[in-house]
Amino acid sequence: MTRTIITIGRQYGSGGKEIGLKVAEKLGIQCYDSRLIQMAAEKSNMDVEKLAHVDEKRANPFLFSVTYENLASGSEYFLPMNDVLFNIQSDIIHKLASEESCIFIGRCADTVLKNDPNVCSVFIRADWEARIRRITKLHTVGEKEAASICKKMDKQRALYYSYFTDKKWGDANNYDIVLNSTSLGIDKCVNTIVSLFS
Amino acid sequence: MTRTIITIGRQYGSGGKEIGLKVAEKLGIQCYDSRLIQMAAEKSNMDVEKLAHVDEKRANPFLFSVTYENLASGSEYFLPMNDVLFNIQSDIIHKLASEESCIFIGRCADTVLKNDPNVCSVFIRADWEARIRRITKLHTVGEKEAASICKKMDKQRALYYSYFTDKKWGDANNYDIVLNSTSLGIDKCVNTIVSLFS
Repeated sequence: MTRTIITIGRQYGSGGKEIGLKVAEKLGIQCYDSRLIQMAAEKSNMDVEKLAHVDEKRANPFLFSVTYENLASGSEYFLPMNDVLFNIQSDIIHKLASEESCIFIGRCADTVLKNDPNVCSVFIRADWEARIRRITKLHTVGEKEAASICKKMDKQRALYYSYFTDKKWGDANNYDIVLNSTSLGIDKCVNTIVSLFS
Repeated sequence: MTRTIITIGRQYGSGGKEIGLKVAEKLGIQCYDSRLIQMAAEKSNMDVEKLAHVDEKRANPFLFSVTYENLASGSEYFLPMNDVLFNIQSDIIHKLASEESCIFIGRCADTVLKNDPNVCSVFIRADWEARIRRITKLHTVGEKEAASICKKMDKQRALYYSYFTDKKWGDANNYDIVLNSTSLGIDKCVNTIVSLFS
């Protein structure tokens, strides 16, 4: 039976994670988001907090000595912790996608699984004002701080995506479907994605 | 009753027009594509062939003397024929959208109707190879010529869109939904758009 694999890229504050969780619930499949960090920690015997610190970030090229870490005891190769996490998460994503229908939020999963014909790649975007409103509620912060967080996260995700995929984050050419969660609404985004598999 | 207004931007050879026609048929509404040229000719008493020649093209900035034409007899203002057609088509698009549910293919309709809350803006893209295959059949030409046509049309539409909207053609940020007709297929694109209104 064909597996249903959905990758969801998302602007910060667009509701991409909420959409992913709701689609997963409707389709009766798992949605993997930040728990991929925990799975990576278990697989590698590395500290989960250290991994969480570099999750969905590219290595800072000016902090080699701080961020470089030995991947495996006794190995001759050294990699930035960010690359270590990306490689472990990619292995986990490949394994999960080969075993079950599931959804992956972020982690460049669209590119990690680019050769899997079962993958449907989604990108969720939203209008700036709506993202700020969402972030003010999520973090209980004012609009100014929300805007600052939003810009920082956008930059971080764009750099992470382009570093590991050589493609532009959020560019429509990289996805099967791009949805604006502000104009369409969360529920319509959920139903649209679900309907692709019915 | 709320009107259903759908604007469809599309890469050349992506099947955007076919998708628009099929959505219109399913929703029981009109789809306006190149017949907007005929309507513009009737409204302005201008030659339909002259208008068709500049349809979805911006004026060539190096051919002012050739392309500039008097908009109305006795007027002091001169505009490129391209701008004349854009203005007339925009008036027609506004009028139709205020009277009936309908679909507009191209003609920067998403921006022309940007203040209409009933508008759903769609962009259809497709993989390069699939577009070439479609164009070879459509024009009965070889792959090399199809690629040449495709590049020319992409450039033409991108320049036209950016000239009249100050936005980037095909940029996901300008649309409510962007669909890849190659990976999703024409029918799934049609059903996805239709489902937004059910």
